[in-house]
Amino acid sequence: MEFLRVSYHVDVSASEAHERAEALALEQTVEVPRVVVRDAFIESRILGRVEAVEPDPQGGHRITIAIPEAATALDPAQVLNLMFGNSSLHADVECVDVEFPASIAKALQGPRFGIAGLRALVGVHDRPLTCTALKPMGQSPEALAELFRTFARAGIDFVKDDQGLAEHAFCPFEDRVRACIAAEAEIAEETGRRSVYVPNLIGTPETIFRQLEFAEASGARAVMISPMLVGLPVFWEICHRRASVPVLAHPSFAGTQRIAPELLFGKIFRAYGADAVVFVSYGSRFSPPEEVCRRLADHLVEPWEGILPSLPVPGGGIRIETAASVAKFYGIDSMLLVGGNLQIAAGEVAERSRAFVAAVAGTG
Amino acid sequence: MEFLRVSYHVDVSASEAHERAEALALEQTVEVPRVVVRDAFIESRILGRVEAVEPDPQGGHRITIAIPEAATALDPAQVLNLMFGNSSLHADVECVDVEFPASIAKALQGPRFGIAGLRALVGVHDRPLTCTALKPMGQSPEALAELFRTFARAGIDFVKDDQGLAEHAFCPFEDRVRACIAAEAEIAEETGRRSVYVPNLIGTPETIFRQLEFAEASGARAVMISPMLVGLPVFWEICHRRASVPVLAHPSFAGTQRIAPELLFGKIFRAYGADAVVFVSYGSRFSPPEEVCRRLADHLVEPWEGILPSLPVPGGGIRIETAASVAKFYGIDSMLLVGGNLQIAAGEVAERSRAFVAAVAGTG
Repeated sequence: MEFLRVSYHVDVSASEAHERAEALALEQTVEVPRVVVRDAFIESRILGRVEAVEPDPQGGHRITIAIPEAATALDPAQVLNLMFGNSSLHADVECVDVEFPASIAKALQGPRFGIAGLRALVGVHDRPLTCTALKPMGQSPEALAELFRTFARAGIDFVKDDQGLAEHAFCPFEDRVRACIAAEAEIAEETGRRSVYVPNLIGTPETIFRQLEFAEASGARAVMISPMLVGLPVFWEICHRRASVPVLAHPSFAGTQRIAPELLFGKIFRAYGADAVVFVSYGSRFSPPEEVCRRLADHLVEPWEGILPSLPVPGGGIRIETAASVAKFYGIDSMLLVGGNLQIAAGEVAERSRAFVAAVAGTG
Repeated sequence: MEFLRVSYHVDVSASEAHERAEALALEQTVEVPRVVVRDAFIESRILGRVEAVEPDPQGGHRITIAIPEAATALDPAQVLNLMFGNSSLHADVECVDVEFPASIAKALQGPRFGIAGLRALVGVHDRPLTCTALKPMGQSPEALAELFRTFARAGIDFVKDDQGLAEHAFCPFEDRVRACIAAEAEIAEETGRRSVYVPNLIGTPETIFRQLEFAEASGARAVMISPMLVGLPVFWEICHRRASVPVLAHPSFAGTQRIAPELLFGKIFRAYGADAVVFVSYGSRFSPPEEVCRRLADHLVEPWEGILPSLPVPGGGIRIETAASVAKFYGIDSMLLVGGNLQIAAGEVAERSRAFVAAVAGTG
């Protein structure tokens, strides 16, 4: 019998830890007092069981619950529900780790293309990749396409929409995709090197599915989605039922206070199918500790139940000046995202873009 | 020009508060340094502006940002992105309030049936409604239908699936719905009073849409969804593009965000279309403060831009013994949810269910 293992950090003293652990095991599975579990099947195949209660050196306790696989129905939404459904409503509980048995890993499937697939799109294998964003929001499709041309001429590998580019009247999705894909072809013709334009899909399912269809039909070679904004199960369905191109995950709305970032971005986004995961890095205007970033990036690429590795994309306000050191920290299998910093001086966007590309190339 | 107004609590001292406020306004809209905003249209129609920076008596500051409506594209996912997209990744920021202008309220639409629609389903207008859950997970469709019969005979108004009932091999959705709807009709015949069976929809969009269609075709008169599990934009699409019956919202996975509960459950779930909102109440095994519960319940029913009120459904482990006092606290326009407590004594489920119904009826 296989188990989904979930670990929580709970702010409790030793005297309460075991009782809380039993309560967590109930809350995440049967959601009734223990006395109500009278049926042998429910007891053996559904009820969560406490596997470990360990004091955390930093205070509080780490509690690990094993949940029988049968309870998950191998469904992407139900897996989340069992991981951190009702217990997320207890303010002192943080979900810190998960272990998927082979059956769940196989059901979730992970990335379809992963690092190798993204590298193949640009033919680069010996250095970290580079990435920037088309922004700020508020520009016309033609203005964004022109910005794309500047970035592509400078040799940036992936140029993604900002995650706030939606179905705006001043910049409809289809016009934007058409203009940027045309610019992609035009600069490839000019330079012999084809950067990848990555449109952002955002909206309710009917909107996103339509956007995906249009993007693929127009020749987009990758797309981006914010899984927490649209829903992780939607993200899974896009990756595994609808998209035929790689999918980048953006962290918007992922406010990870109570799911450890290394778990959410490092394991969950990967398991659900992200070929690349954008996350806020140390050295940005967000400031997670270096060791969290290290664990997060490691989780994205380490061997895991036959699931492909996912490309770490550190971002969140990295500057050209520190791009090389950040690239060295994450190593070759990463993609550096530098956004607004390329645009801080009017008229110098091309120059700054080239400087970014050179800085990262130097680390390969 | 209309604005989406969003308020945040930020853990900063007075000397940093104004700078953080400007940073929040940039982060939530243009996501570039201020100097990059050179275009007049972007400056006036996209860029967020700081409206208020006030010291919070409990410490830190409350910051209110006004975001021009044009940035929202009136899209349910983009509204979330602008409310708390990237800023959710700053560990010291909590999203505490939002004001929707008429245009966004109209686009989101809110509940289609609301309190009046739910009351009409059971013909009860003079007392709080009652609710319980079919659980624990792990039972067969027939066992759950039998539990439904017990609750319906006792006169409980709404009997919902537990939010963990998914597409399990031991209890497929369609078999469960068929069995429970049949039980609903059977007990209505017997007692002359028809309780409402509320199936839980869970999964990726294709699964949920199929479940909804089957449930409605089978005669279900309401359904339940966990918006944070499946994604708020999916929830919106279900409510406003697909469902023809009322939708109850369940709080599973909702605690993972740093959004004040009175905002998320009281305003956001209502605005997105929940006809009834289940939340964990004071007096349960979760223990939010009474004043948070009061504000949350008030938000669900207060007049708001022509949006229908949504039914407050306090739950999370309320016991029969305190049901009457909790019902009095929330008043007539509420629905009490008592779950596992009805089942703690084998053989006394019917009796305890009747006691629950009587306790709430006594407060009408």
